[in-house]
Amino acid sequence: MNILILSAGTRDKVVQFFKNELRGEGRVIATDCSNLAPAAYEADKFCLVPRINAPGYMDGILDICRQEGVDAVFSLIDPELSMVADYAERFKEMGVTPIISDKDLVDKCFNKFEMAKEFEKHGLKTALCYLSIDEFNAARKEGKIDYPVFVKPVCGSASLHINKVTSDKELEGLFSMYDDLMIQEYMNGQEYGADVYIDMLSGKCTSIFIKKKIKMRAGETDKSVSVHIPELFDQISSFVENEGFRGIIDIDIFEVNGEYYFSEINPRFGGGYPHAYACGVNVPAQIINNLKGNKNPVTIGDYKDDIVMMKYNEIMIRDMSGTELVP
Amino acid sequence: MNILILSAGTRDKVVQFFKNELRGEGRVIATDCSNLAPAAYEADKFCLVPRINAPGYMDGILDICRQEGVDAVFSLIDPELSMVADYAERFKEMGVTPIISDKDLVDKCFNKFEMAKEFEKHGLKTALCYLSIDEFNAARKEGKIDYPVFVKPVCGSASLHINKVTSDKELEGLFSMYDDLMIQEYMNGQEYGADVYIDMLSGKCTSIFIKKKIKMRAGETDKSVSVHIPELFDQISSFVENEGFRGIIDIDIFEVNGEYYFSEINPRFGGGYPHAYACGVNVPAQIINNLKGNKNPVTIGDYKDDIVMMKYNEIMIRDMSGTELVP
Repeated sequence: MNILILSAGTRDKVVQFFKNELRGEGRVIATDCSNLAPAAYEADKFCLVPRINAPGYMDGILDICRQEGVDAVFSLIDPELSMVADYAERFKEMGVTPIISDKDLVDKCFNKFEMAKEFEKHGLKTALCYLSIDEFNAARKEGKIDYPVFVKPVCGSASLHINKVTSDKELEGLFSMYDDLMIQEYMNGQEYGADVYIDMLSGKCTSIFIKKKIKMRAGETDKSVSVHIPELFDQISSFVENEGFRGIIDIDIFEVNGEYYFSEINPRFGGGYPHAYACGVNVPAQIINNLKGNKNPVTIGDYKDDIVMMKYNEIMIRDMSGTELVP
Repeated sequence: MNILILSAGTRDKVVQFFKNELRGEGRVIATDCSNLAPAAYEADKFCLVPRINAPGYMDGILDICRQEGVDAVFSLIDPELSMVADYAERFKEMGVTPIISDKDLVDKCFNKFEMAKEFEKHGLKTALCYLSIDEFNAARKEGKIDYPVFVKPVCGSASLHINKVTSDKELEGLFSMYDDLMIQEYMNGQEYGADVYIDMLSGKCTSIFIKKKIKMRAGETDKSVSVHIPELFDQISSFVENEGFRGIIDIDIFEVNGEYYFSEINPRFGGGYPHAYACGVNVPAQIINNLKGNKNPVTIGDYKDDIVMMKYNEIMIRDMSGTELVP
């Protein structure tokens, strides 16, 4: 059983986890468009590929699947998720399982405004949001919302250009500088992240790991602590099954005055997943089990509370003096 | 020989390096104001301390020195460097060596405008900079500078609020939003970092490691490659000796059209130092040698070219369910 991890980048831990789980049973192949992607060197084989927007990029990935006898494929970067979902049938025809939800659902995840409407449709709380200053001002007059607010790109990934805005002057300044912004209710509360697995065979939500985010850095969870929130287990489980998500997803949630507000969904391994793995929430094992044709039992909440994860920088050193850049 | 590392935070590698170099000869003690500082858990002993701005903070550090038989102390965070320099005499009276330059020099490093004038005084190139929109506009009329420009806080540390600005509208917007900004010539070139050791006994610059920065993330070097630039070895060595720096410092330099522009000095271990250590530029060993009363030989440039460093996230997991948070 061989697994292909696309755009491995600096996600060394994810590659290591799959190698651990596959040991003896298969290989991990990793791609990246840079030969300076440390995670790709963790794999059994590193395939240097063009940038994802290069012509014929996905055909090159199909070639790698053929050459390496790949059984399943997934990507670790947002802009590639839709592409993998788009090629789902092509992958399946070759006997390769794409570990990703359906394309429509993936696309919806990257439009924060549409996703907010989706949360509301399912009866989940989410932050108020507006696409224009006029709509925001109208709601403000009605007393529904006031400064501070978040201003962020409707379709941005990560936390690029996210600003806490406290005045008309700033708001107008940002809208004059950037396009496609959205004004969102400022969530002055505790942030949580959920690593959620939806069985690729049964469609059931089989595991949820909830972590309280203690510290963020560059849009990523830097420190977090494991917690159990039964109310969220229920809400998440029913939402992701109704929406039809498949595989691993990462959900951002805010808690304000005891109420949980759903913020975003990343239909991939989240940057904080290593915390879940360290607590025994073994998604790579569930993926491999699915690939072997077995459904996974529901084990939501099977982990201990109060386990803290703290990230720090490890380094990988490579001698690049030769011309052979790929090991 | 016991070394005290203040505000260890997530600088696990620096703590590990000192432990490696001291093995058998002494202990590393680390402090942090958070019990979620992974680097502090790497040390032989973790002392949880108040925030650096708490009353009596430095007296608490002196107490730790006394209790733990500390021989030398240094901090890893910018706002604490001046404080350590300020207490230099108090430390020395107790037989503790503060690994830091003189206070005046440390303070100068955190005023980017003053430091730029200092580089110029020593005949080193540096980016043009202005403290007001009027001065910038005057220089612009004379054809000395034009958009794009960097706008940054005069006294900021790291890259907080650094913006590439391309128009009057943006420039005025930023100046209306924030105080104490400075307008700096946009350096559209290659960034380099130098890890420099100035012997604490001889005052000589004994080692310089230059890395070409390949990728930045959240103001830190994420990927870099080792290079030799003899011209910079000479300029750096003479500048730091003339200025009277002591211990480890980190210098940021830009190269534009073959000319080197000095940008900033951080009078502490830089975030990219692990690259230098991995290449054999062993600053902890030089510090320990100094502390033993020995001067270090000059070994500038003693490392190989084309060695690449790539950072990735490692995680530390701790069970925080007990009330005893410090191990």
